[in-house]
Amino acid sequence: MRSHTYYHWFETSKKRDYIRITDMVSEQLDKSGIKEGFCLVSAMHITAGVYINDAESGLIEDIDGWLKDLAPESPNYRHHKTGETNGDAHLKNLLVGHQVIVPVTDGKLDLGPWQQVYYAEFDGMRKKKMIIKIIGE
Amino acid sequence: MRSHTYYHWFETSKKRDYIRITDMVSEQLDKSGIKEGFCLVSAMHITAGVYINDAESGLIEDIDGWLKDLAPESPNYRHHKTGETNGDAHLKNLLVGHQVIVPVTDGKLDLGPWQQVYYAEFDGMRKKKMIIKIIGE
Amino acid sequence: MRSHTYYHWFETSKKRDYIRITDMVSEQLDKSGIKEGFCLVSAMHITAGVYINDAESGLIEDIDGWLKDLAPESPNYRHHKTGETNGDAHLKNLLVGHQVIVPVTDGKLDLGPWQQVYYAEFDGMRKKKMIIKIIGE
Repeated sequence: MRSHTYYHWFETSKKRDYIRITDMVSEQLDKSGIKEGFCLVSAMHITAGVYINDAESGLIEDIDGWLKDLAPESPNYRHHKTGETNGDAHLKNLLVGHQVIVPVTDGKLDLGPWQQVYYAEFDGMRKKKMIIKIIGE
Repeated sequence: MRSHTYYHWFETSKKRDYIRITDMVSEQLDKSGIKEGFCLVSAMHITAGVYINDAESGLIEDIDGWLKDLAPESPNYRHHKTGETNGDAHLKNLLVGHQVIVPVTDGKLDLGPWQQVYYAEFDGMRKKKMIIKIIGE
Repeated sequence: MRSHTYYHWFETSKKRDYIRITDMVSEQLDKSGIKEGFCLVSAMHITAGVYINDAESGLIEDIDGWLKDLAPESPNYRHHKTGETNGDAHLKNLLVGHQVIVPVTDGKLDLGPWQQVYYAEFDGMRKKKMIIKIIGE
């Protein structure tokens, strides 16, 4: 079994942002030389997500609005008693999920035609880390 | 390390449908000959989900109603400006998740007594692809 | 490829509970001797979750309140016609997710500084099983 590990730092200019990372993941797979296996893409922070969906700007706005409805910003989170202000971002992380596994087949990310890997920042404008880890042969 | 890859096409007669696929996954595990490892079951479309829960018809209706409440059909999604009508299905996919990993132990899916694997179609009546990929030894 | 499998039984004194299990997972990784790979932590019941987020008591109360809002207790679930009373717990399971994959690098759980693994009980006061399974080399 072989493995390949890569860390990427984001620092978004906006508080919330949605960044397509399929090409970055694919590039790491090429570097790994792995032909059959699993590729984990996982946020290493608890106020960011990783998901797979469509690269369509209208939909991304829909997702952002939907997350604001279901996990709203509010001054009333108990978490804010610690001095934090990002309670909503923790809930958005739980809603969307912080990781995906992309299957690797014949040396390629085995994604459907519209599946794109996204990093979703919910509490940005500071350095945040993500891991891409591939195991296989 | 060994691996086994299988693709399945669904074409549901209803727009939304919930299909128990535990036996299909188990059959592919048998074909793989893998005794210890991980089995990924993942929708390859962005308007369908894969989840693990109970095979109880009342609960499945509850899940369907809950998804309609939290990710409702609406003409107002920005995504619909592209001509699409399935904005809700993209959000249902994010809510339920599009993949699970089933542990494989002693050549069997290592599931709890009530855990059943489901394919959840949110925008059906057309061909949709799913991957089962097993790695291990 | 090596693998290591461990089952843990919970029996919480409260109906809903949030238990930090990072140390338990780390201990099993040590026992496995695996240096590079993936560690699956997965509830084997359909009314419990496993997630990664912050070990901060205020936030855990926020998460609990948020889950009660989005997947409320109610006598009206169709699932309750079977005699069950835990319809809400099934929905909480789908919302939070029942499993995570922790990357393993240099023999350690490769988590970010605030990432803690949690077992979330949504229908407790009875015995519930969880699996930790590690594959790698």
